[in-house]
Amino acid sequence: MMVKVIVTHKPGVLDPQGQTVLQSLRQLGHRDIRDVRIGKYIEIELDATSREDAERQAAQISDKMLANPVIETFRVELE
Amino acid sequence: MMVKVIVTHKPGVLDPQGQTVLQSLRQLGHRDIRDVRIGKYIEIELDATSREDAERQAAQISDKMLANPVIETFRVELE
Repeated sequence: MMVKVIVTHKPGVLDPQGQTVLQSLRQLGHRDIRDVRIGKYIEIELDATSREDAERQAAQISDKMLANPVIETFRVELE
Repeated sequence: MMVKVIVTHKPGVLDPQGQTVLQSLRQLGHRDIRDVRIGKYIEIELDATSREDAERQAAQISDKMLANPVIETFRVELE
């Protein structure tokens, strides 16, 4: 089963990578861009007995290895 | 308007970061994980006259700055 995990900064946490891209875009003339936030996108292919099991495994992995719970939050999406 | 861009490796392109996570998960006992692929997730807040305009701007930015067209592909998602 294919599970997608999206890891983003928690609201209020600074995102220097996003700010750098934002500055560069403005310097290139993209005046309509208000904000850029950069996160991670992870596709996990796993064996699971059910959708719930897949979701549970993905959340466990994300919590343990993919996201830093201090500054990041994640959501799991099933196809 | 909020636009989301997902950047992933093209099929067949090696993903060392994903492979490293996969190895670590297996060593931690996650035997059910078959594959892990890691990409980027970008949220762009922009002023646009229409959904089409927002999509066009996001695609232009992605092509220019967010994705490496040699090894990566991207898709734009509107809320």
